[in-house]
Amino acid sequence: MLGTKLSAGDFSISNLGKPEKNSPLIKEKELFVKETQKITYYADIEEISSFIKQGKDLPCFEMAGPRKKIFFASEKINCAIVTCGGLCPGINDVIRAIVYESYSRYKVKKVYGFRYGYQGMVEKNHIKPIVFNTDMVNEIHEKGGTMLGSSRGSQSKEDMVDYLQELKISVLFAVGGDGTLRGASDIAAKIKERNLDISVIGIPKTIDNDISYIEQTFGFETAVEEARAVIKSAHIESKGAENGVGLVKLMGRDSGFIAAQATLANADVNFCLIPEVPFTLKGKNGLFPLLKKRLIKRKHAVIVVAEGAGQDLIEKEPELIKERTTDASGNILYKDIGVFLKNKITLYFKDNGFPATIKYIDPSYIIRSKPANANDSVFCLQIGQNAVHAGMAGKTDMLISYWNHNYTHVPIKLATSRRKMINPEERLWKTVLSMTD
Amino acid sequence: MLGTKLSAGDFSISNLGKPEKNSPLIKEKELFVKETQKITYYADIEEISSFIKQGKDLPCFEMAGPRKKIFFASEKINCAIVTCGGLCPGINDVIRAIVYESYSRYKVKKVYGFRYGYQGMVEKNHIKPIVFNTDMVNEIHEKGGTMLGSSRGSQSKEDMVDYLQELKISVLFAVGGDGTLRGASDIAAKIKERNLDISVIGIPKTIDNDISYIEQTFGFETAVEEARAVIKSAHIESKGAENGVGLVKLMGRDSGFIAAQATLANADVNFCLIPEVPFTLKGKNGLFPLLKKRLIKRKHAVIVVAEGAGQDLIEKEPELIKERTTDASGNILYKDIGVFLKNKITLYFKDNGFPATIKYIDPSYIIRSKPANANDSVFCLQIGQNAVHAGMAGKTDMLISYWNHNYTHVPIKLATSRRKMINPEERLWKTVLSMTD
Amino acid sequence: MLGTKLSAGDFSISNLGKPEKNSPLIKEKELFVKETQKITYYADIEEISSFIKQGKDLPCFEMAGPRKKIFFASEKINCAIVTCGGLCPGINDVIRAIVYESYSRYKVKKVYGFRYGYQGMVEKNHIKPIVFNTDMVNEIHEKGGTMLGSSRGSQSKEDMVDYLQELKISVLFAVGGDGTLRGASDIAAKIKERNLDISVIGIPKTIDNDISYIEQTFGFETAVEEARAVIKSAHIESKGAENGVGLVKLMGRDSGFIAAQATLANADVNFCLIPEVPFTLKGKNGLFPLLKKRLIKRKHAVIVVAEGAGQDLIEKEPELIKERTTDASGNILYKDIGVFLKNKITLYFKDNGFPATIKYIDPSYIIRSKPANANDSVFCLQIGQNAVHAGMAGKTDMLISYWNHNYTHVPIKLATSRRKMINPEERLWKTVLSMTD
Amino acid sequence: MLGTKLSAGDFSISNLGKPEKNSPLIKEKELFVKETQKITYYADIEEISSFIKQGKDLPCFEMAGPRKKIFFASEKINCAIVTCGGLCPGINDVIRAIVYESYSRYKVKKVYGFRYGYQGMVEKNHIKPIVFNTDMVNEIHEKGGTMLGSSRGSQSKEDMVDYLQELKISVLFAVGGDGTLRGASDIAAKIKERNLDISVIGIPKTIDNDISYIEQTFGFETAVEEARAVIKSAHIESKGAENGVGLVKLMGRDSGFIAAQATLANADVNFCLIPEVPFTLKGKNGLFPLLKKRLIKRKHAVIVVAEGAGQDLIEKEPELIKERTTDASGNILYKDIGVFLKNKITLYFKDNGFPATIKYIDPSYIIRSKPANANDSVFCLQIGQNAVHAGMAGKTDMLISYWNHNYTHVPIKLATSRRKMINPEERLWKTVLSMTD
Repeated sequence: MLGTKLSAGDFSISNLGKPEKNSPLIKEKELFVKETQKITYYADIEEISSFIKQGKDLPCFEMAGPRKKIFFASEKINCAIVTCGGLCPGINDVIRAIVYESYSRYKVKKVYGFRYGYQGMVEKNHIKPIVFNTDMVNEIHEKGGTMLGSSRGSQSKEDMVDYLQELKISVLFAVGGDGTLRGASDIAAKIKERNLDISVIGIPKTIDNDISYIEQTFGFETAVEEARAVIKSAHIESKGAENGVGLVKLMGRDSGFIAAQATLANADVNFCLIPEVPFTLKGKNGLFPLLKKRLIKRKHAVIVVAEGAGQDLIEKEPELIKERTTDASGNILYKDIGVFLKNKITLYFKDNGFPATIKYIDPSYIIRSKPANANDSVFCLQIGQNAVHAGMAGKTDMLISYWNHNYTHVPIKLATSRRKMINPEERLWKTVLSMTD
Repeated sequence: MLGTKLSAGDFSISNLGKPEKNSPLIKEKELFVKETQKITYYADIEEISSFIKQGKDLPCFEMAGPRKKIFFASEKINCAIVTCGGLCPGINDVIRAIVYESYSRYKVKKVYGFRYGYQGMVEKNHIKPIVFNTDMVNEIHEKGGTMLGSSRGSQSKEDMVDYLQELKISVLFAVGGDGTLRGASDIAAKIKERNLDISVIGIPKTIDNDISYIEQTFGFETAVEEARAVIKSAHIESKGAENGVGLVKLMGRDSGFIAAQATLANADVNFCLIPEVPFTLKGKNGLFPLLKKRLIKRKHAVIVVAEGAGQDLIEKEPELIKERTTDASGNILYKDIGVFLKNKITLYFKDNGFPATIKYIDPSYIIRSKPANANDSVFCLQIGQNAVHAGMAGKTDMLISYWNHNYTHVPIKLATSRRKMINPEERLWKTVLSMTD
Repeated sequence: MLGTKLSAGDFSISNLGKPEKNSPLIKEKELFVKETQKITYYADIEEISSFIKQGKDLPCFEMAGPRKKIFFASEKINCAIVTCGGLCPGINDVIRAIVYESYSRYKVKKVYGFRYGYQGMVEKNHIKPIVFNTDMVNEIHEKGGTMLGSSRGSQSKEDMVDYLQELKISVLFAVGGDGTLRGASDIAAKIKERNLDISVIGIPKTIDNDISYIEQTFGFETAVEEARAVIKSAHIESKGAENGVGLVKLMGRDSGFIAAQATLANADVNFCLIPEVPFTLKGKNGLFPLLKKRLIKRKHAVIVVAEGAGQDLIEKEPELIKERTTDASGNILYKDIGVFLKNKITLYFKDNGFPATIKYIDPSYIIRSKPANANDSVFCLQIGQNAVHAGMAGKTDMLISYWNHNYTHVPIKLATSRRKMINPEERLWKTVLSMTD
Repeated sequence: MLGTKLSAGDFSISNLGKPEKNSPLIKEKELFVKETQKITYYADIEEISSFIKQGKDLPCFEMAGPRKKIFFASEKINCAIVTCGGLCPGINDVIRAIVYESYSRYKVKKVYGFRYGYQGMVEKNHIKPIVFNTDMVNEIHEKGGTMLGSSRGSQSKEDMVDYLQELKISVLFAVGGDGTLRGASDIAAKIKERNLDISVIGIPKTIDNDISYIEQTFGFETAVEEARAVIKSAHIESKGAENGVGLVKLMGRDSGFIAAQATLANADVNFCLIPEVPFTLKGKNGLFPLLKKRLIKRKHAVIVVAEGAGQDLIEKEPELIKERTTDASGNILYKDIGVFLKNKITLYFKDNGFPATIKYIDPSYIIRSKPANANDSVFCLQIGQNAVHAGMAGKTDMLISYWNHNYTHVPIKLATSRRKMINPEERLWKTVLSMTD
């Protein structure tokens, strides 16, 4: 899907300098990863062969893990964690892993926790960072959310690097999505500009699972689990009334992975609408006539819609848009595809004199605030530990990923170069279609 | 609370006639309830004494349970179940209990299930009733909702009694809330008018727990359990942002029991708003300044609002009401106290230049579609069984209740004579206040 | 069930002295309970009438709640909590409620927490008590168990009262079952002997729900909920093999309430065995032939057994008892009715050449360590608050109970005078039989 | 880990013959998989390079998925499903997927379901197979277990192939572990011997996750989720008593994946014992002194033991073994490492005069009978669909697997050639050690 334009060079990781100090792990019977250990990006044998035939190096990821030689004298440095963007199951697990690994394994002096995202990284905002100890984080993974708080939006890179210098921080761990990671990359650039020895390690956090070059992001599985339960509720509601329609809006701004996966995990969804696949409301293959057909046949229906789906349809309703502009209470209302569909479906059936009942559920906050399920917890633990290994080794401007059985390093630039989306021509969407038609 | 105007007579139950047939239970070692067994309405010793001193009979409930002599030749009759109104955890448990008890214990010929509420009781609506067998209901209690479907609103009593006659039904079990029960009472009146031997037994279903003369309705506990989980999500969300406000709308049209009980079950609610207790938005004791004060002090807050709370505030906003009437998409929007508060709080803080983030959750459909928890399941089982006992004994125009350790009979007229609400002067609300201030 | 020998006097509560100080609550708009407010023990109108006809006072419970005048100058005293016996959902909720109510409402100086039960109340055992603050208990209700730890067995009353005096404790809250409460009563007696002003308030904790004069104990409902889930597992297992038998042992030393209630909450139990109802293994109505009959008919079966059931059967097996005595690993093995039945059933079917598979589950620790469900949480909160009210009012040698809608005071002596058990002639057991035959 | 002895040939899949018929999918816009599409077995770039340098073909898996040309005239054939061995979350999901895919996509005539494992595949055992329809399986994925029932042990291959011929079955889907799959391979061999056109497709089911050449087996994740919850209970119990020890036995006969993964998912395990890593009880690095040390330091401890761990220790106790042989009730008892450890630890602390309390939990049946979590459900769906694709294409003696992002075909011989186990020298175990020491 991602084309053959990638070359081995796109996967190379930036380093602050040559790692020359002995890792504190050296005393233990540790398994070290060598810099030469790499994981193939392609798994398809034809792709691999094509590189070989052309005499080109295979694009591959640096393998994550502890290094024998590290860059920092770890017992003399401070680290810091910042969490940005919306909540996602597992953030606290990541924080916990970083704090434990930093203190227990690398004996770092202090781990700071910036509060409320990048806002807390600007000194003049007067939000004091936490100084962690292991007791503080011991049980946080049992709770959803982030103990540090979060915020959206960017801050001055100058100000943030100033504060990192002020606090004498050598490694910054930035937990966040696309925007946060670009921000982290900018911070790394600013650090380079100033010629500082500060490593910036990204931890990709996107409940939508829409970051490229990572098989799956943490929290996604937990989100699908919770989404499945909500769809079950919608199904029960839809069967509770004659011609009942259960409508569930799920997370997914640009990528419909949660909607698609939850549809497969549950067997009750009849219509799955995602940003990647445009749809119409009326006309031959329009949602409304298909929905009516389904109701006539089965008396109930379940629709799942990703929040980013059908945005073009909303724009096409000038009347509604006009009303929107005069709405004093915020213009979010009519951009909300869930509310939009609920209202439009209601109107459609009213206009058609067809008695239907729509039950609309928006479970986003309920889903994203849940603690990580067991698998996500283990995943977060290992991502967090590998992030610390990478930081100590002096890697920078990169994030921790997982690919073909292995934890890997990915340049932030590469990971943010294009969004991961569902390809409607590939297997996942075909399977969704086969389960919903 | 309910006054001393009640006399023993208000509690007397209507009968179709004298029960003269032997119950099929007679063969078994059954424990029969005598007609004279009654349960005191008052538990307070002063109330009881006052009746005694005045030489008056104590108001008391007929005890529910199997009778030695029954009214119907049970093996020759048909029964029917109808479920009306919104979903509530446990409806399927009740259906299951009635079907099993009717077939296994009383050997009735057929148990019909009317589909989609009272709509299905009108023949010309062409919604064929189910004829139950025990296999069909064996596992339904593991699912939420009602396998019969439901609807709101009333139908012609004439039509419904016609259909009961047509199907030769001797006992009708009506599962529903206030309106449904009044409807059942009207059906019983029509039956009496026609001088028919058809018993009408109500099963009170109200997730709001707002029916009088019953300690607690089925599904209420399950609803509180689920509501608690959602409040937890709101709490996590509120802490995830600086000055985060988690706002949860819960069921409760006239009575705030779910909101109050969920507030006590959870320790994170700071403001609990219910229909019984008016509140203001601005001014000294207004919600907004108190909320701001809380945010300044603790950086986050959780608000729980029952759907029926603050309706007067919405009416006071002529502008918003005007917009509402011109809104093509349905006028529900601005009557929704949850959306109203979310918008008003957002505006308030914007106007005050105070950076706050509101996260609004409306979990109603998720809550009410859940299967009953264990306690509600047992409760539903026993209500269902007792409903069948009452019907077979020829009782009519009454419902099954629970009071002071015992299942009881309550005249529908009495139960619907006044709504059960939280008395702000009594213990429950005092405790809520002590937990939220 | 509990006989008519009880007189009003059995319900009278001991007091340290006349409450003469103003409650700190007096400033608030509080609802106070008067000493004359009482709740009828009997709800049955015939019982009530019989007392009245004989001119006798009705037996009734003192109503719990805050008093206008209290005994202690609350802001000058220390309190203490001790938790004893096995774990039970809700203990932490009770601790939390007592700590908050003591500090926030009554402004007591210190609340101590004795660690590991009565062991921690003996100074020479060198287990330092905790001094609570509200932060410490803020979130403990989200976890099962007891943050204080617990232990079984008694300690010297002299030593314990010595330590209470040493720590200047005025109110002791003892959370525990039958034995613990008797111990608390003995401590109260010793205190009286020494003529001290120390109040002893019991909080009945028994997952078995086997304490009399309380409708239901906290944690019981949660336990039934969890037990239901385990029975579901046993049912799945039983259906997974030809002639599969799922056998679940549940808590219930002398009283089978959990087994009975879980049987009603689940519809899959075929045999429910409790301590109150003796059973035989072989012979006409023996468990084994009935089990075989069921397997032949339906290919699978589920048995629930309370831990105290069938103890007589184990004693009758001299051979097994002999083996038991020579077993170095502890003699618990063959006293365990679960293991006993598993082995005996296996042997029976082997001897009969009947191919059956037994799957035995002992979920006790899993159940009792769960956090309280929402209803139990609210119940614990109110029990804890009322315990503090009682202690401040100078009540002693009593426990907090719930009866006919109201929180009540019960003399420990009365509550421990007889164990609450299932009466096989009453409704609960009849219903269990009707659901399992 | 698995060595370099593997060659491309080891991965080649057997076919009944050349697929020449058009797939019924051809009408749809389907995405077909070509026979040449393959997935690299190795992901490590060094391994891949070494093959290339030697001019050898890379070992790689055939890609699973629908083929344009299929072997069978699918609308004229019958298929059959058999489920063997212990329960595992997701079996019903697999059954459901196979039944739906067979009927809805390939329009097969009949799908049989053999009952109770291979036992039901022998006609003379008189266990009639089910003939599926889609209604029967519509909701089975919401329940744990297998709707077909299961059994252990093998049956005559002659008899089973006779019955397949008798029922005119063209594709057999065998869901099971190591033994079941070897059995399926033997059936395929017998089919070949008789020169029949019957495809045998394996679906690897092992809750232990111990089958090679598959990244993870279905149900494993769900099992870890449930195991985590049980460990939490053990942790609560351990803290509930002074020197409390929570001991949990988890599944894992030869491979400790569940124990290891659950240890990482939970942060409360202090000792994780698995079959792959021998341990001693006494002496310097023995479990007992380390446990005592931990208790002295922290007052509580949690031990997780896989069922196959420490079997050598049990054999070393001749006394206990002697008792075992005379125990009439089955010799399982002392082979049970959980009971063994519970007893030995109890004795150790008794002998040492150290007051400790052991709480032992064996949750196996509770865990394995759970329904699949969302991720396992999706996984099962896709495994089931791909199994049907493979069968229709005339593949045989192979199983469906997942490797490097893709569903794959693996020869049964290869998959059963060696068991997947934890390598104590690799990352997973290192991480477990770092979390528990």
